[in-house]
Amino acid sequence: MSKKEDFITQITKRSEDFSRWYVDVIRRAELADYSPMKGVMVIRPYGYEIWELMKGHLDGMFKATGHRNAYFPLFIPESFLTKEAEHVEGFAPEVAWVTMGGSEPLEERYAIRPTSEAIICSMYARWISSWRDLPVLINQWANVVRWEKVTRPFLRTTEFLWQEGHTVHATAEEAQEETLKILDIYRTFAEEYLALPVIAGVKTDAEKFAGAVRTYCIEALMPDGRALQAGTSHNLGQNFSKAFNIRFENRDQELEFGWGTSWGVSTRLVGAIIMAHGDDSGLIIPPRVAPHQVVIVPISRGNWKETVLPEAQRLKDELQAAGIRIHLDDRDTNTPGWKFSEWEMRGVPLRVEIGPKDIEKEQVVLVNRMNREKAFIPRAGMVAAVQDKLEEIQSALFARALKFREENTRDAEDFETLAEIMENQRGLVRAAWCGSPDCEALIKEKTKATIRVILEDPPDEKAVCPGCGKAGAHMVLYARSY
Amino acid sequence: MSKKEDFITQITKRSEDFSRWYVDVIRRAELADYSPMKGVMVIRPYGYEIWELMKGHLDGMFKATGHRNAYFPLFIPESFLTKEAEHVEGFAPEVAWVTMGGSEPLEERYAIRPTSEAIICSMYARWISSWRDLPVLINQWANVVRWEKVTRPFLRTTEFLWQEGHTVHATAEEAQEETLKILDIYRTFAEEYLALPVIAGVKTDAEKFAGAVRTYCIEALMPDGRALQAGTSHNLGQNFSKAFNIRFENRDQELEFGWGTSWGVSTRLVGAIIMAHGDDSGLIIPPRVAPHQVVIVPISRGNWKETVLPEAQRLKDELQAAGIRIHLDDRDTNTPGWKFSEWEMRGVPLRVEIGPKDIEKEQVVLVNRMNREKAFIPRAGMVAAVQDKLEEIQSALFARALKFREENTRDAEDFETLAEIMENQRGLVRAAWCGSPDCEALIKEKTKATIRVILEDPPDEKAVCPGCGKAGAHMVLYARSY
Repeated sequence: MSKKEDFITQITKRSEDFSRWYVDVIRRAELADYSPMKGVMVIRPYGYEIWELMKGHLDGMFKATGHRNAYFPLFIPESFLTKEAEHVEGFAPEVAWVTMGGSEPLEERYAIRPTSEAIICSMYARWISSWRDLPVLINQWANVVRWEKVTRPFLRTTEFLWQEGHTVHATAEEAQEETLKILDIYRTFAEEYLALPVIAGVKTDAEKFAGAVRTYCIEALMPDGRALQAGTSHNLGQNFSKAFNIRFENRDQELEFGWGTSWGVSTRLVGAIIMAHGDDSGLIIPPRVAPHQVVIVPISRGNWKETVLPEAQRLKDELQAAGIRIHLDDRDTNTPGWKFSEWEMRGVPLRVEIGPKDIEKEQVVLVNRMNREKAFIPRAGMVAAVQDKLEEIQSALFARALKFREENTRDAEDFETLAEIMENQRGLVRAAWCGSPDCEALIKEKTKATIRVILEDPPDEKAVCPGCGKAGAHMVLYARSY
Repeated sequence: MSKKEDFITQITKRSEDFSRWYVDVIRRAELADYSPMKGVMVIRPYGYEIWELMKGHLDGMFKATGHRNAYFPLFIPESFLTKEAEHVEGFAPEVAWVTMGGSEPLEERYAIRPTSEAIICSMYARWISSWRDLPVLINQWANVVRWEKVTRPFLRTTEFLWQEGHTVHATAEEAQEETLKILDIYRTFAEEYLALPVIAGVKTDAEKFAGAVRTYCIEALMPDGRALQAGTSHNLGQNFSKAFNIRFENRDQELEFGWGTSWGVSTRLVGAIIMAHGDDSGLIIPPRVAPHQVVIVPISRGNWKETVLPEAQRLKDELQAAGIRIHLDDRDTNTPGWKFSEWEMRGVPLRVEIGPKDIEKEQVVLVNRMNREKAFIPRAGMVAAVQDKLEEIQSALFARALKFREENTRDAEDFETLAEIMENQRGLVRAAWCGSPDCEALIKEKTKATIRVILEDPPDEKAVCPGCGKAGAHMVLYARSY
C-alpha cells in the first residue's frame, strides 16, 4: 500500500458514513480533539484559526453597525437566572453550578452562563435611566456552558465559544429593526463568507428562545439531509426589562420598560462548513475563512532546494504581499504526493505546484481542491490568477451547496408524504401548518422532524396541515435537525 | 458651581486619595463596573476597547514569533489539577468548583481553570510523540477564575481575562530561550505600547509560579510607590512533563520528557496604565492603546452646525484615512467646555478644537492631554502634526513614568533604612540579599516588602543582607506590591 493510500484510508469515506467521516476529519485535520471530560472538546490551532477568521469578519460587521464589545461575568447568581420564568425553565436543566469557592461553600450557588441575558440585563438596569442612554448596542465574545447529554465536536459541546449581542431600545419598532438587521448580517455572513446558503425566517413558539417574544434564525441544510440552525436573533420585547427592571424616562418624561434583543452565533459554524463542503478526501474550507488559502508544494526533484525552493519562496512572498494567506510546505521529509493528499485532507482550497519544468516554461500549476482541475498559468500573471481562482472556488462552493439544497427541498401535502420523505430522503419539506402546537408536536413525535422556519409566503388556498388536515395558516419548512 | 467644576468633583483627586481616585475614575470613565457578585467586575465597552487594542498588538507579536492560538476547556478535573504537587498546593485555595451539572451531582468535581497547565499538558501528552512534533508553541486568550479575598477592578478580580502561552521544547536550552524571548516581548510591549517602564528579572523561589523551575517577570512602579507585577514568563523545566507524561522520542531514538514554558499577561495591564499615567482630572491613555487617540470638539457658536460641523467632519475623515482612531463629539446637548472636561477625564491623549475663528485663520488647535498645552497648526499640515503629537505624547508618558521610577528607587544597606523607606516613601529599594528564604520572609513580615526581582548585577563586596547582616549573594529590588 502506498503512503498516499495509507494516509487517506485513515478517514472514513464521507459517502460511506457521514457521521464517522465528520469526526475522523476533525481529528485527522487537527481541527479539534476530545478532552478528558465527556462532551468537552479542545479547539486545536488549525480549527481555532478558522474561528478567528470568522470572528474577524463578523466583528467588523457588528462594529460597522454601531455595536461595541464588552465583557460580562462567567457567573450568574442563581436568583438572577430565575427572574425570567420562561428563561430559567428553558435553561436550568443544562446549567453547570459552582457551589464551592476555595474550601468554602457558597451562600448562593452560581450558574456558569448558558447565555448571559440574566447578568447583562442586571447591569443594563443600572446603566440605563433616560432615552438618551439608548440604544445600548453591546456584544461579547465569550465561552458558555450547557450540560448536554449528547455531544458532537463543534455542533453541540458542553462548553463552546460564541458571540452574544444584547441590545436595549426605546421602542418596540427599533428592537424589531435591530433583530432583523442582525438576522441579515448573519445571512450575509453565512452566504458570502462561509459559502453556506441559508434560509432566514421566524421560529415557532415551541422552537423559540426561552424568554423571547420572537426568535429568528438562519437554517442551513447539511449533506446528510439534516438541517442545522446556524444563528439566532431574538426579539425579547419587554420580557427581560420587566424581569430586571430596565426602565428609562422617555421623551415625554414617562418611565417605560426598555425593548430588548439578543443574538448569537457560535463555533458551531465551524462544524457547519466542515459538513457542508467536505468530500471523501477531507475538508474543503471556503477561501474567505481558510487559514491557508493557498499551499505551495515545490516538486522535489534533484537539487530542488537550490533551484525550485528559492522560486517557491518568491511565489510565497508575492502572494503574501497581495494579502493572500499562504503556506509553503518546504519539508524534505515528505514526497510531493504525500503533501498533495495532506493539504487536500486539510481543505486548503487552492494548491500551487512548482517544479523544474514549470520554471523552465515560466509557469505555475494551480490545482482546485474542489475538482482537482489543473490550470497552467504564466508565471507573470500568477497573483491575479490565484485571486480569481479563490473567488471562483468561493462561489462554486456556495453554488454547489445551494444546488444540493434545492434538489433536497420537497413539498408534502399530507402526512404520509411528509413521513415518507423524512424516512427515506430527508432534506427540507415545505408544507402548510395550521398554527397549532399540537400538530407540530405530533409531527415531531412521528417523523422526528421539527418546523425549522415559518416562511413568509402565505399558503395556497387548498393547502392543508399534514397534522390535522385543516387549512394551513402558514407555509413552513420541516426537517430533522442537528 | 459651574457644570465643569461639578463634573470634575465627581472624581476624588488623585493627589488626595490615590486608591479612591483609581476606583472613581474607572467607574466615571465607564471602563468597568462592579457586578452583583463580590469581587467580580464587568468590563464596559470603553475599557474593553483598550484590552482589544492590547490584545491586537500582543497577538501580532506572538504570531510573528511562531505561536498559534487555540482553545482549551474551562474545566479541569480535580484529579488532573492535583498531578503536579506544587501546582495544586499553590492554586487549590483559590479554585472555584463545579459540583453539579443540571440537577445531577458530578462524580468528580471540576475546577474552573485558575491557569491551564494541567488541562493543556494532558492534551500535549497525546499530541507529542517525536522530536518532529516539537516545539509546540500555543497560546490561548481566555477567562480564568481565582477565588480572591481582596479584590480591586482590573488588578485583582475573581474572574479576569488573559492570555496564557504553553510551549514544549526538545531541550532545556530551547525552553530557557523561549522563556526569555517572551519576557522580552512583554518588556517591549509594556514599554513601547503602554508607555510603562518595567524591570525584567527573575523571581525568588518564594515568589515563583507554583510548579515552575524559574519565574521571570516584568515589574512596574506605580505612583503610590507600590510595585505591580505586570507579566510573568515561567520556565517549567520537566515538572509538568513528568506529572502529565509528555514524552517524545529524541533524535537518538530515546524517550525523553519535554521541556516546558508558560507565560501570561492579563487585563491587569489596563489597571497598570490607569494608575501609571492618570492625573487629578482623570485618565491619560497612551496613544497606542487609546480607543480614541484624538477627539474633535467643534466650537459651537452661532450656526455652527452649518459652518463648523462640516469642517470638523472633514478633519475627522482626513485623520481616519490616515489610520488615526478618531472621535468627533458632535452632540448639541453639551457645551464645548463640558466636552473638554469629559474627554480629558476619559484620557483621550489629544484634542482638536475647531471654531469659526480657526476656520477663518485656516488653522486647528491641538491640545495635549498631559499638560493642556495648545498648539495652533496650519490646517494643511494637520494630519502630520497630529501624528507627531501622538508620538510625542507616547514618549513623554514613558519618560515621565521612568523619571518617577528613577526618583523612587533607593538603596538600603541595612534593615533600618529599608524599613524606614517602606514606611515613609515606599518605591523600589535596591539591597543585597544573602539568598535565604528566612531573611526574605522576615523582611516581608516586618516591612510588608517583598523581593520583586533579583537583579543581574552582582553586589559589591561590602554589601550585606538587611535581614541577617551577612554577605549579599545577589542584588534585589524590594517593594510593597499590588
